[in-house]
Amino acid sequence: MNGAESVVRSLHAGGVEICFANPGTSEMQFVDALDRTRLMRCVLGLFEGVVTGAADGYARMAGKPAVTLLHLAPGLANAGANMHNARKGRVPMVNIVGDHALRHQQYDAPLSGDVEGAAAPFSDWVRSARSAEGFAADAMAALAAACSKPGRVATLVAPADIGWDEGGVMADVIAPEGPAPLDETALSQAVRALEGGENTVILAGNSVLEDITALALLQGISERSGARVLAPVSSRRTERGRGRFEVPKIPYPINEALECLRPFTRAILIETPPPVAFFAYPGKPSLVLPENCEIIRLTGLDGDGPAAIAALADRIGARPGRPVDNPLPPAPQSGAITRETLAAAIANALPENAIVTDEMVTAGAHVYPAAAGAAPTSWLALTGGSIGIGLPLATGAALGAPGRPVIACQADGSAMYTIQALWTQAREGLDVTNVIFANRSYEILKGELRNVGANPGPAALNMLDLDRPELDFVALARGMGVPGRRVEDARELQQAIEDATREPGPFLIEAVM
Amino acid sequence: MNGAESVVRSLHAGGVEICFANPGTSEMQFVDALDRTRLMRCVLGLFEGVVTGAADGYARMAGKPAVTLLHLAPGLANAGANMHNARKGRVPMVNIVGDHALRHQQYDAPLSGDVEGAAAPFSDWVRSARSAEGFAADAMAALAAACSKPGRVATLVAPADIGWDEGGVMADVIAPEGPAPLDETALSQAVRALEGGENTVILAGNSVLEDITALALLQGISERSGARVLAPVSSRRTERGRGRFEVPKIPYPINEALECLRPFTRAILIETPPPVAFFAYPGKPSLVLPENCEIIRLTGLDGDGPAAIAALADRIGARPGRPVDNPLPPAPQSGAITRETLAAAIANALPENAIVTDEMVTAGAHVYPAAAGAAPTSWLALTGGSIGIGLPLATGAALGAPGRPVIACQADGSAMYTIQALWTQAREGLDVTNVIFANRSYEILKGELRNVGANPGPAALNMLDLDRPELDFVALARGMGVPGRRVEDARELQQAIEDATREPGPFLIEAVM
Repeated sequence: MNGAESVVRSLHAGGVEICFANPGTSEMQFVDALDRTRLMRCVLGLFEGVVTGAADGYARMAGKPAVTLLHLAPGLANAGANMHNARKGRVPMVNIVGDHALRHQQYDAPLSGDVEGAAAPFSDWVRSARSAEGFAADAMAALAAACSKPGRVATLVAPADIGWDEGGVMADVIAPEGPAPLDETALSQAVRALEGGENTVILAGNSVLEDITALALLQGISERSGARVLAPVSSRRTERGRGRFEVPKIPYPINEALECLRPFTRAILIETPPPVAFFAYPGKPSLVLPENCEIIRLTGLDGDGPAAIAALADRIGARPGRPVDNPLPPAPQSGAITRETLAAAIANALPENAIVTDEMVTAGAHVYPAAAGAAPTSWLALTGGSIGIGLPLATGAALGAPGRPVIACQADGSAMYTIQALWTQAREGLDVTNVIFANRSYEILKGELRNVGANPGPAALNMLDLDRPELDFVALARGMGVPGRRVEDARELQQAIEDATREPGPFLIEAVM
Repeated sequence: MNGAESVVRSLHAGGVEICFANPGTSEMQFVDALDRTRLMRCVLGLFEGVVTGAADGYARMAGKPAVTLLHLAPGLANAGANMHNARKGRVPMVNIVGDHALRHQQYDAPLSGDVEGAAAPFSDWVRSARSAEGFAADAMAALAAACSKPGRVATLVAPADIGWDEGGVMADVIAPEGPAPLDETALSQAVRALEGGENTVILAGNSVLEDITALALLQGISERSGARVLAPVSSRRTERGRGRFEVPKIPYPINEALECLRPFTRAILIETPPPVAFFAYPGKPSLVLPENCEIIRLTGLDGDGPAAIAALADRIGARPGRPVDNPLPPAPQSGAITRETLAAAIANALPENAIVTDEMVTAGAHVYPAAAGAAPTSWLALTGGSIGIGLPLATGAALGAPGRPVIACQADGSAMYTIQALWTQAREGLDVTNVIFANRSYEILKGELRNVGANPGPAALNMLDLDRPELDFVALARGMGVPGRRVEDARELQQAIEDATREPGPFLIEAVM
């Protein structure tokens, strides 16, 4: 058994079932091992950013990591943006990145480069394998790191000869680190804050938002204590929709965020750090909680949020809240697709038990709240702010939760970073409805330009407008084997989404705004 | 004047005329400064890999660097693969990468990351600006580093507040480092080798291949001494075609490379290191010159190759060779597009004074030699082995040499990494004819899989074949505003290339193989 085969067999024994790959020469021994063992489903991406974005979406839905297969320093760089997003979302991921054979690394071959260095900014854990014998043990250490609480991005650099050399040894599963124990002092502080009548906000993130039981208890805590519950600007997965306790997000625009948090003198943090502005702006603070607000860290990111919430509910005598009637906007009439009618069309069209990937950028401020009253969904957001995750995320989510319809709510500018994901959707026959919000502009950047005090002129707009030429997303989809249609009417849009989610396989709707 | 404006004005005074941009929030003050000053042409890319690949193509043709505008660590990662290619090709490039404001960097904002760390593996020079006052001086240091011999990739990290703060100061142009002086000892050794009757190979790279005078002298040296002249597997720019001295490349396949170099007992290196196999293979050497071959480094990469060749010619009494009749294959008959007929069609269709970008991968072994007898061209290769440069390179080359037709010879698999470049071609109205070699496969990897001893089965082929679904490149081009047609006949292909190069604006030809 060579090194590559020992890694494939060991990872599979550790529960890894799928490999997202964009392999090159230095990974050929893995391609061969995957071929011979038939243990994993192998999914090809035409670009590395598709591979890591899909691995992220898979893990968010499957609750366990995929393995990716990447190629040398520049190929890893192509994967970096979506490794960044997964890392910020605390999503588990195991990357295997081929490198030159050990003896070849001393020469400046064209593809040589610092693979570990390229991995470090976008990984929580990096190691280079050094022998065929120890290769599988390294891979299992990567898997344990990825699965430890909170989820991590683990990158194992794999010299080519370590993979093709004989002498591979199966390695045992290593138990991942569990959550940090509950901090009883912080629990008592939280209890006092909730019972003390101060203006208190509970900020809850990560696994809390994925857990319907925890959300119902948070509702009960809020109802009993009067505390407000808010979520970070973006989270890896939020269970929401009809009947579920809707946790509003802290707004993205800096002024709205400051205004939203201004009333609070106590903040209880559960699996989320103190909220920070996405960007700094001249004359605005970076931390968005009021300066005099006392912060109680009930759990860190490495804690067990749902367990802490159960303990908190127990201490203050709160019970799970009753199913909530979140408002659903009326179905849109015929007319132009605006942010408002787009929101209404999507909220009304969402099927039961759907997964939504959210790279909506500017339109999100309308669509996200509107979907609170829609059918129950798993809502997957852009966690690290690096655009180009939406279509890969939807691709991976469909593989991580087979049978559930996926709706990719996708801004047009960001869709173009990893548009190649559509081909993988077609190749794998995935039930993804891609809805492109075609406003022909990096609209959010126009707002950011005004935030730094500028008034955009023609050269600036030339870097922010996407209307020359107009992108034809239906043609792009057809080019990659995905059928599609262009829609300019809000009512037709709702119907188009409903139709597409009922049909098997991928579809693209270009919603012209 | 704020920091951003001081940088734009200083770089422009230093000769920088074009900015390739994919800006985000942290670069808005640059967008504003570029807008207000109107000093540079601003070219938008829909993806960062397009931006750096185009900056590379521009510099190869214009002979000076462009500036790029990139966004934070993950955006920089997206640009990394084509920074790698430029770096390996010794092409000058100046990247300005926005980072969070200095005071914001202590918080774990969603987009925060190690920008310098992400830049380091793909840059020769990295610095972070620290004040508005010193910002332009930092930019001019980056420009000098980029323009020093050999060309370098220089990356300047630009915290947002340094850009928007007042107090920017214009900075003077810094003279770049010139070439290293000629090594007289090495020159005498080279003279002795050429006059000693041993089997000698001259390996010449970088600026030698760009210089028609140096090439003619190399021809004369070869004719007088009997030495063979060879070039590296890939070079940033080679002046070749009808009448010019054709320097064959060392073959890419390891066995052919070893066979090609086996006869030689002396190697004279001019602006190129000792040749190294692209990859290591079990049982094969990494260095491809014979072990007993004496190596004479007439110049290093930092030397002046054309000057060294002039001195060498002078010493051995060689004169420029006469214009050469390189063979041109006959125009193809009607019939299937094979590697052979593809080569004949391209060689016969190339117009006078064209620029060819070469990301042909497997087909290159046929097309490259066939073009030796075609009309004179500037031939731009994939220098760092990281696929996804061809279409951006063609885009930038068209901007670097206005009025010259550009033909992108492009494999299909690698085209999909940065397909977004087509949109920039349409937006800027560039005269690029994109010829996609559609063999529906990562064909080169099938060979590499066999090189490691494997016999690909269905799961392996599933990661190497691109035929399910078939990519429709004409639809993809139309989606980005570029007209195109699909061609399945070799004779029609030649006609289609001839037609497209005569028409203004971009065009795409999908050559189905």
